[in-house]
Amino acid sequence: MLPLALTMGDPAGIGGELTLRAWQALRGTARCFVALDDPDRLAALAATIGCDVPIRLVTDPVAAAETFRDALPVLPVRLAIPAVPGQPDKANARAVIESIERATKLALSNAVRGVVTNPINKAALYDAGFAYPGHTEFLAALTGAQGKQVMMLASPQLRVVPVTVHASLRDSLAMLSTEMILVAARTAHAALRRDFGIARPRLAMAGLNPHAGEQGALGDEETTIIAPAMAALRAEGIDVSGPWPPDTMFTAAARTRYDVAICMYHDQGLIPLKTLDMDHGVNVTLGLPIVRTSPDHGTAYDIAGKGVADPTSLIAAIELAASLTARRAVALGSAA
Amino acid sequence: MLPLALTMGDPAGIGGELTLRAWQALRGTARCFVALDDPDRLAALAATIGCDVPIRLVTDPVAAAETFRDALPVLPVRLAIPAVPGQPDKANARAVIESIERATKLALSNAVRGVVTNPINKAALYDAGFAYPGHTEFLAALTGAQGKQVMMLASPQLRVVPVTVHASLRDSLAMLSTEMILVAARTAHAALRRDFGIARPRLAMAGLNPHAGEQGALGDEETTIIAPAMAALRAEGIDVSGPWPPDTMFTAAARTRYDVAICMYHDQGLIPLKTLDMDHGVNVTLGLPIVRTSPDHGTAYDIAGKGVADPTSLIAAIELAASLTARRAVALGSAA
Repeated sequence: MLPLALTMGDPAGIGGELTLRAWQALRGTARCFVALDDPDRLAALAATIGCDVPIRLVTDPVAAAETFRDALPVLPVRLAIPAVPGQPDKANARAVIESIERATKLALSNAVRGVVTNPINKAALYDAGFAYPGHTEFLAALTGAQGKQVMMLASPQLRVVPVTVHASLRDSLAMLSTEMILVAARTAHAALRRDFGIARPRLAMAGLNPHAGEQGALGDEETTIIAPAMAALRAEGIDVSGPWPPDTMFTAAARTRYDVAICMYHDQGLIPLKTLDMDHGVNVTLGLPIVRTSPDHGTAYDIAGKGVADPTSLIAAIELAASLTARRAVALGSAA
Repeated sequence: MLPLALTMGDPAGIGGELTLRAWQALRGTARCFVALDDPDRLAALAATIGCDVPIRLVTDPVAAAETFRDALPVLPVRLAIPAVPGQPDKANARAVIESIERATKLALSNAVRGVVTNPINKAALYDAGFAYPGHTEFLAALTGAQGKQVMMLASPQLRVVPVTVHASLRDSLAMLSTEMILVAARTAHAALRRDFGIARPRLAMAGLNPHAGEQGALGDEETTIIAPAMAALRAEGIDVSGPWPPDTMFTAAARTRYDVAICMYHDQGLIPLKTLDMDHGVNVTLGLPIVRTSPDHGTAYDIAGKGVADPTSLIAAIELAASLTARRAVALGSAA
């Protein structure tokens, strides 16, 4: 059983302590992972927060899987200077980037099952040559999948795929197009079949406007932009319903009728997901040749190094990545 | 103890059966109401859906309160033709309007404690001279409060006040202004003090953009439109926090920190409210000289007359109106 690769994230953030806590929570399970991190900083952090985690250097992922029961396996990525919790330092930017690059290469060569990333602070990376709007775009570039990446947020109660993501609401409205909806919906459909084990995924398409436009009285994007996308998807045999009034499509009853909600803008999907369950949301990047998940929170500098950060979302991200890659392994196995 | 006035709503919708069910649920309580409705149609409806509700004509609200324990009191508003469930008819538009007008007049003269309205279909009323965008604007006109009405949605878990309401998302962005935010926030603040019994209401201001704009990277309305409103409110001594990232401000932990969320557009407030609790949401119109609540759903023609409509939201609307008017009565009493 190969491990997942878990990146360092910003060493001034909460990633390190989440890694320690995740190992404690998962060491007795098959969801094993190897940290691409600085072993000395993890050991120091464990001492600081009073967390009893033996650290063991390994040289390859197979050794990591064998070690996981007894110690947190680490493929070393050395920091340039000691990390100070809460104080990001550009001197360590190169190590943060290297951790992501090495994890991705291991996944591309099938030496690990997939990649789980700890939170980064992209502003601290720009000087080291990081030229991407975010983590996800960097991973897309590393895997040759630029422009194909689609964000899904998944929790036990709901999966959402926002068609527009990190743009102002005004810009999101301006850029929303039939083509963008098609890319998001097709990518979600393929991923639900392959990685989530849903033979015939049911997609629910959100309207953009209040009451889904009320027959044009409250906006016409449902007719001009969303309906053509739905027609094209149906012609491809994809099960898609909607466009639904956004305010009633996330109720418990409504959620039983679909496997993923295709949402027109960031908050339309993220408000219901986080309102229902703040802790178990996992960010899954669809459209890459590798499996990649991440916790649904940031570096949390304000609480870093205090031992109080909640590892629930990182643990959920590791568990989901393990589940997705298990299905992918089965699919690959049965195809062989 | 004076009753509340409950309007007929569209007689082809589910209002009548909700009225019958609400009386069954509340007859043993102090939350008494008088229906402004057609007694013959209510009696016929009770027989159709097998609902044992004695109907009693009354001539004034005081008699209604005395009757409420034993029978559903009705101040008669006669339909022009028998109502057919699911089939709205313009011939009855005049009666629908009259029910609202009479209820409002009774409230303005303090003959009833407040008004609870059953759902209408405004399209069916236009030919009868109804010239308002909706129910709420009509009530504002009847009470001389045009332009002062502010919508609040209240459930046991959350109160939201959307600054822009029934407009496309694109138009909502175009019309959003500091002045509109101020009207909504001041009206909400005053109502929470007077009617909800909250001595020092805490307002949470939502951002407009993902992550509340991320210091301008994802939009600038937080700085140009929302911040000036917050500064003005604080200068008036109002406790307001934010602007908050919209996707994390409705979690259980976040909700403990405020009494009302001021939201920038319809779905920003209604998605979390209905996702958390589809059934107990109540629409409260703030800014009127009378108390007015309504259930948070429509006429539901598809299930009208079948006896399956869920009265939970209407009952919640009656209970909230009773609670709000009780506080108002106390306030008036102590001011006298």
